[in-house]
Amino acid sequence: MSKARFRWPVRVYYEDTDAAGIVYYANYLKFMERARTEWLRSRGFEQRRLAHEHGVLFAVSRLQLRYSKPARLDERLHIGVGITRLGHAGFDMEHDVAREDGTALCTGSVRIACLAIGELKPRAIPPFLLTELRRED
Amino acid sequence: MSKARFRWPVRVYYEDTDAAGIVYYANYLKFMERARTEWLRSRGFEQRRLAHEHGVLFAVSRLQLRYSKPARLDERLHIGVGITRLGHAGFDMEHDVAREDGTALCTGSVRIACLAIGELKPRAIPPFLLTELRRED
Amino acid sequence: MSKARFRWPVRVYYEDTDAAGIVYYANYLKFMERARTEWLRSRGFEQRRLAHEHGVLFAVSRLQLRYSKPARLDERLHIGVGITRLGHAGFDMEHDVAREDGTALCTGSVRIACLAIGELKPRAIPPFLLTELRRED
Amino acid sequence: MSKARFRWPVRVYYEDTDAAGIVYYANYLKFMERARTEWLRSRGFEQRRLAHEHGVLFAVSRLQLRYSKPARLDERLHIGVGITRLGHAGFDMEHDVAREDGTALCTGSVRIACLAIGELKPRAIPPFLLTELRRED
Repeated sequence: MSKARFRWPVRVYYEDTDAAGIVYYANYLKFMERARTEWLRSRGFEQRRLAHEHGVLFAVSRLQLRYSKPARLDERLHIGVGITRLGHAGFDMEHDVAREDGTALCTGSVRIACLAIGELKPRAIPPFLLTELRRED
Repeated sequence: MSKARFRWPVRVYYEDTDAAGIVYYANYLKFMERARTEWLRSRGFEQRRLAHEHGVLFAVSRLQLRYSKPARLDERLHIGVGITRLGHAGFDMEHDVAREDGTALCTGSVRIACLAIGELKPRAIPPFLLTELRRED
Repeated sequence: MSKARFRWPVRVYYEDTDAAGIVYYANYLKFMERARTEWLRSRGFEQRRLAHEHGVLFAVSRLQLRYSKPARLDERLHIGVGITRLGHAGFDMEHDVAREDGTALCTGSVRIACLAIGELKPRAIPPFLLTELRRED
Repeated sequence: MSKARFRWPVRVYYEDTDAAGIVYYANYLKFMERARTEWLRSRGFEQRRLAHEHGVLFAVSRLQLRYSKPARLDERLHIGVGITRLGHAGFDMEHDVAREDGTALCTGSVRIACLAIGELKPRAIPPFLLTELRRED
């Protein structure tokens, strides 16, 4: 995904690996969420504040992952983040995971819904946030 | 996924939840893998033995998840397992996650590749295992 | 810890292991917490209900672990639970982790505090729970 | 632990938290291991290379943790690392976890054993590594 304008580095520790000697398949979702969180933070938004001050949280409603090569202990990865669709109550993002030398390891497409905390029902993205996300489009 | 013939119960503990008060999105992949592992075990196959005696392991190469409702602390879930395609070097499975009362929470489609341990290259599923898996078809 | 009157079985999955081929050291704390939770449930208490109806949660304030042998993929472990001290605002528990054949793998001592949810300050254990826990002493 | 000469920053993500709204108690062990790994790396040692080239790995054989205050989503923590004892086949380390403003959250003492990979039996720390670790003393 060459369109990714934001990249976040992640180091692979023992906690991320499994007995096959590689990163456990679910943990790429952790890496992608770290990168999404840092991308949001880089635009001025912290999830805890969004929850406390605006009563919303972002939840993944759908995702697709493709694994091509495994990551291993001590490797440094880069997680790309790009927004591919922006709606009123959610957005779509694409992620790619690559080694430092650029080798592609995994790609992911994620649909994210804006939810009201508590009841966890769909809610419009707060206007100030929507405006900021639109700049990326 | 009404076709699921195997179901595995999973209890939600604090370790599975996050600060939104619900099961963290990556953890459904853990639950699905537990259910796949138990489904294999119920047919007589243990992954550690498959690795040690036959030099193969199963790795997810592709997956799709859809989340419809969240799971919460202390809930008891059922993870359904069904095989939807069986090839020479891999197979496809479908999973569904439901509460005890039958409420559907999440569905997943997973493509699994048979790999040689060490190099992690594609390899044919060992014949005795293929024969057993075909019975499910 | 032969005094343990409650034992909870845990199966080791890929998610629990690391690249050294063994259960990752932090994951024994997950196993112990599952066992404590089931021990509480076996006495009639669910943590989510304790939080919602009584406004308390139990948090570990101190712990000690000793690892003697590693657990591996596919092994079935038993986690022992025993209460060793019961106070007004907390209690101490001992855990042991063993293979099915009885081989001891790990022991843990855990101090647990009763906290008010929200502020997370120490609070007296609700009387009905204290009474029930005393029966174990 | 004011003696800590190495500090590693850790950001708290959703993956680290639980339904009590705070960092799950086992996850501090992940943070401490990340910091130990980076401390080793800062001295020129990578665990994967130590395993492949020297046939050793470091495993925790004993630990003690004290939790004083909880960490929450989005907080940035600092994990201190200090060596308190250096033997021929292992060493002891102390960790402290603090918020950016210096508030102490958790302290840990960890005994680490040098093991031969495979059999996982105690082994002497390789001389070149022992020499380097002694400089810290």
